[in-house]
Amino acid sequence: MDDYNLVIGVDFGTDSVRAVVVDAATGEEQASEVAYYRRWAAGKYCDPARNQFRQHPLDYLEGLEAAVKGALAKLPPGAAQLVAGIGIDTTGSTPGPVDADGRPLALREEFSENPNAMFILWKDHTAVQEAGEINHAARHWGGTDFTKYEGGVYSSEWFWAKILHILRHDPAVRAAAYSWVEHCDWIPALLTGTENPRLLKRSRCAAGHKAMWHEEWGGLPPEEFLVRIDPLLQGLRDRLYSKTYNAATRAGNLTPAWAERLNLPPGIAVAVGAFDAHIGAVGGGITPGTLVKIMGTSTCDIMVAHKETIGDKLIGGICGQVDGSVIPGLIGLEAGQSAYGDVYAWFKDLLTWPLEAILPETSLVNRETGEKLQEEIEGRLLQCLSEEAARINAGETGLLALDWLNGRRTPYADQTLKGAITGLTLGTTAPKIFRALVEATAYGARAINDRFMEEGIEIKEVIALGGIARKNDFAMQVLADVLAMPIKVAASDQTCALGAAMFGAVAAGLYPVVEAAQEKMGCGFAKTYTPDPENAARYRELYRDYLTLGMVLEDHLRKM
Amino acid sequence: MDDYNLVIGVDFGTDSVRAVVVDAATGEEQASEVAYYRRWAAGKYCDPARNQFRQHPLDYLEGLEAAVKGALAKLPPGAAQLVAGIGIDTTGSTPGPVDADGRPLALREEFSENPNAMFILWKDHTAVQEAGEINHAARHWGGTDFTKYEGGVYSSEWFWAKILHILRHDPAVRAAAYSWVEHCDWIPALLTGTENPRLLKRSRCAAGHKAMWHEEWGGLPPEEFLVRIDPLLQGLRDRLYSKTYNAATRAGNLTPAWAERLNLPPGIAVAVGAFDAHIGAVGGGITPGTLVKIMGTSTCDIMVAHKETIGDKLIGGICGQVDGSVIPGLIGLEAGQSAYGDVYAWFKDLLTWPLEAILPETSLVNRETGEKLQEEIEGRLLQCLSEEAARINAGETGLLALDWLNGRRTPYADQTLKGAITGLTLGTTAPKIFRALVEATAYGARAINDRFMEEGIEIKEVIALGGIARKNDFAMQVLADVLAMPIKVAASDQTCALGAAMFGAVAAGLYPVVEAAQEKMGCGFAKTYTPDPENAARYRELYRDYLTLGMVLEDHLRKM
Repeated sequence: MDDYNLVIGVDFGTDSVRAVVVDAATGEEQASEVAYYRRWAAGKYCDPARNQFRQHPLDYLEGLEAAVKGALAKLPPGAAQLVAGIGIDTTGSTPGPVDADGRPLALREEFSENPNAMFILWKDHTAVQEAGEINHAARHWGGTDFTKYEGGVYSSEWFWAKILHILRHDPAVRAAAYSWVEHCDWIPALLTGTENPRLLKRSRCAAGHKAMWHEEWGGLPPEEFLVRIDPLLQGLRDRLYSKTYNAATRAGNLTPAWAERLNLPPGIAVAVGAFDAHIGAVGGGITPGTLVKIMGTSTCDIMVAHKETIGDKLIGGICGQVDGSVIPGLIGLEAGQSAYGDVYAWFKDLLTWPLEAILPETSLVNRETGEKLQEEIEGRLLQCLSEEAARINAGETGLLALDWLNGRRTPYADQTLKGAITGLTLGTTAPKIFRALVEATAYGARAINDRFMEEGIEIKEVIALGGIARKNDFAMQVLADVLAMPIKVAASDQTCALGAAMFGAVAAGLYPVVEAAQEKMGCGFAKTYTPDPENAARYRELYRDYLTLGMVLEDHLRKM
Repeated sequence: MDDYNLVIGVDFGTDSVRAVVVDAATGEEQASEVAYYRRWAAGKYCDPARNQFRQHPLDYLEGLEAAVKGALAKLPPGAAQLVAGIGIDTTGSTPGPVDADGRPLALREEFSENPNAMFILWKDHTAVQEAGEINHAARHWGGTDFTKYEGGVYSSEWFWAKILHILRHDPAVRAAAYSWVEHCDWIPALLTGTENPRLLKRSRCAAGHKAMWHEEWGGLPPEEFLVRIDPLLQGLRDRLYSKTYNAATRAGNLTPAWAERLNLPPGIAVAVGAFDAHIGAVGGGITPGTLVKIMGTSTCDIMVAHKETIGDKLIGGICGQVDGSVIPGLIGLEAGQSAYGDVYAWFKDLLTWPLEAILPETSLVNRETGEKLQEEIEGRLLQCLSEEAARINAGETGLLALDWLNGRRTPYADQTLKGAITGLTLGTTAPKIFRALVEATAYGARAINDRFMEEGIEIKEVIALGGIARKNDFAMQVLADVLAMPIKVAASDQTCALGAAMFGAVAAGLYPVVEAAQEKMGCGFAKTYTPDPENAARYRELYRDYLTLGMVLEDHLRKM
């Protein structure tokens, strides 16, 4: 590459979208901008008590425009003309219904306030019932178990379960939904004018890990099976897709309309989309033998393996093994925890309840600083809890918790599970509970490592990305102690956006393969957490207790 | 009774002592005063993380003087001369070491700051190990099981376990302790100048329910058995007691010195002491067929039964069945929960942690009222949680908790047990957890009712006394729903002090028997909680789940 080229990585997260402009030759960040989802921030269309989490497509569009334009505005004049490609990642599985033109129903007047016409966010668990039925059908219908490349357990967080739930509960959406798209499919299609369901280039990552797509059975599961789950699914398969693409593929060219809207040159390459964790793993430096943990509200744990390492083996209990879902030519393996930082945030919310419930907000002002007390305390609480909890020794709390507050994703997905805290006494303090919760999330992480290693997939190193990895020293040290393995933290705090930019660069033809982009654009590591041998030994025992407690309580928690 | 006589009830609680002056003819309260324990309030001599709770005898003496004088000062001049008797109740088992003169060691200069020389409060659980050894010895030594009239399980909260713990861990106290007294034994002895261990009239209630005293084996367990538990106990039995007395007995006459100190006539009757719950049950109106629940930080549940109802039967898993421990001529039965209001207070403390840990106290001032925010929020928190929790339906939280945060007292005492909260999700709020905790304490209460009823001891009505009964409508309604039984709340909020006054009146010869004092001096009922049939039905199922969860988790919780 002789030219100075820029590429943009666009990373749609749970709360916001971020656009990062990077130097395509070095990966160095030139500018970035975050835009928060306005309706989401106001709590619209969601019902946390029922685990219903929906996002309006306008949040995505307004956010995209604000983030990309905001980032470009920070560059020298004219620099936007040097942008050669865009890569895009989103959360997932986050599907939404579209009409025959590929337009999300929520963008139509009559559906603009209907949560069932919106994107169903990854962490929405309204489809527990449907996931159960899909699992039942997969095991008992008499043919292939189509969940077998997705760990053998279909989750309520995934594509078909969510679609079926909406089809059952909302006749108006059912009548109007021609097809369904993942958030990561829709954005590149929109930017390239290929939203039409017959043109749309679908993400292999989304399809293979969440929609039971596999080449063995020629794509999505056959009609016969889908109808067996529920006749409501009849005919939908033909209106979805059979071919899928890695994010290194060019989805198309930026349309003049979107070029104008984003202040970018028309016709530049837009890569096929993929899930944030997969793209982030690439941005963080994934290679065979490396487990990349994307640690935020939940975790997504990604590995890539040579085909010969896996052979014909089916890895049970994880969220998928898909050829080329992460990097073309390698098997992508996905696992994860349904809640990680969300567990800590839950505890923070619990402890700040009295600040919201008892006195009017106007009374709660720091007399010395004039700050709003609630914000001030909330802002410092997790840091303060972490500091206090770090003073407690491993195994000293007398507590043992189960981290399944949002169900369990890996190993062996089961969204009907719930969390627990045991060993409470009158001397149990908030920092002790916080430590127990941090330990519980780490035990959950260890269970994933064990699952891979039991299948002979060696983990030579762990790389951590995401907010928890970057911000919570305490949680990361506990994790290193529990995993009994050093953890390297990627130097960039925007590995998803960086990874998306790498895919944008490959899609634009600036690099021949993803590995080449990784080599030139990679960010290196900021920090390593090394396990303390004494704590690691203590946690080896406590982890056994965690596994035992989980087994003892599983049936009870499922019933509740 | 033609004369106008007054009697004083003195009630030593966990945090304070209260003196109430009542009209001996009607039970009507004439004046009262509370004095808080100064050293205790400052947290001295305690270590909640280790469940070590000790009280300095000076707290009792200073409190006694302040409370009695304070109450008398509210009467018309000269009225103090009409006081005919004093009755006394205390917490228990709350033993402390004394020298050969019967003087608590902590009143001696060299022991004045040694927690092991003080009274070991009922809720101190430092003697878990010793209780285990006592239980082991009782079952395996080859002779009578001396715990058999105390429910078959000796608790770490009780007399011998606490004594043995101190003898083992503090050689200086061991060398100086001639004998040991219960708090309820010591106060009447002190007031009547009979502290000498050879003169001291011991409470049958304390002896029979907590010290394995029974007429079947001629008093305390034989030396041979005690030495089998630990040779350190050698010789102690002879320096303790063999005879015991109901609180209706006159312990002696008020000494001139104490008469002067308390502004009372010298020579008036002082009744033998007893535990607050037993005395309170009498004050609250206990009769055969009535379960009286004293509901405060913990609960104590008392019944009295005719000897023919019990016959030779041993009631397993309760805290004792003792002839005449409550009312002479009837079998006193005691049960209870190690934590009730303490569970709610624990949750309050948990939720207010951010108010203490993060900002300096000076910043936390209500801008509108000028009040200290921490106090304001703490003061309103339980009320606010109760209101919010009351809006949630029975069974709707999805949570199930075990109430053993301070171990389990009844049924089948086991202080090594701990609490748990199961069914947590990201949507679990503070009011939901509070509701689950309230339900858990109610399930614990139901387990006690069931234990009595399984043994054929009919419960015709439930009377509730104490702070929870009087202050927490929500918790009481849940309790009525869970017990599926109406609960009457005594009209007096000082039934312990009233009961003590009744015993003072009997000791003074104003009434021939306790029942006569109850009839004339009783306070009636302020309120009845009636179970909601629908909730009662729902809780019948959830209570089964609670029992199952307890069984599933018992081994795990014991280990932690």
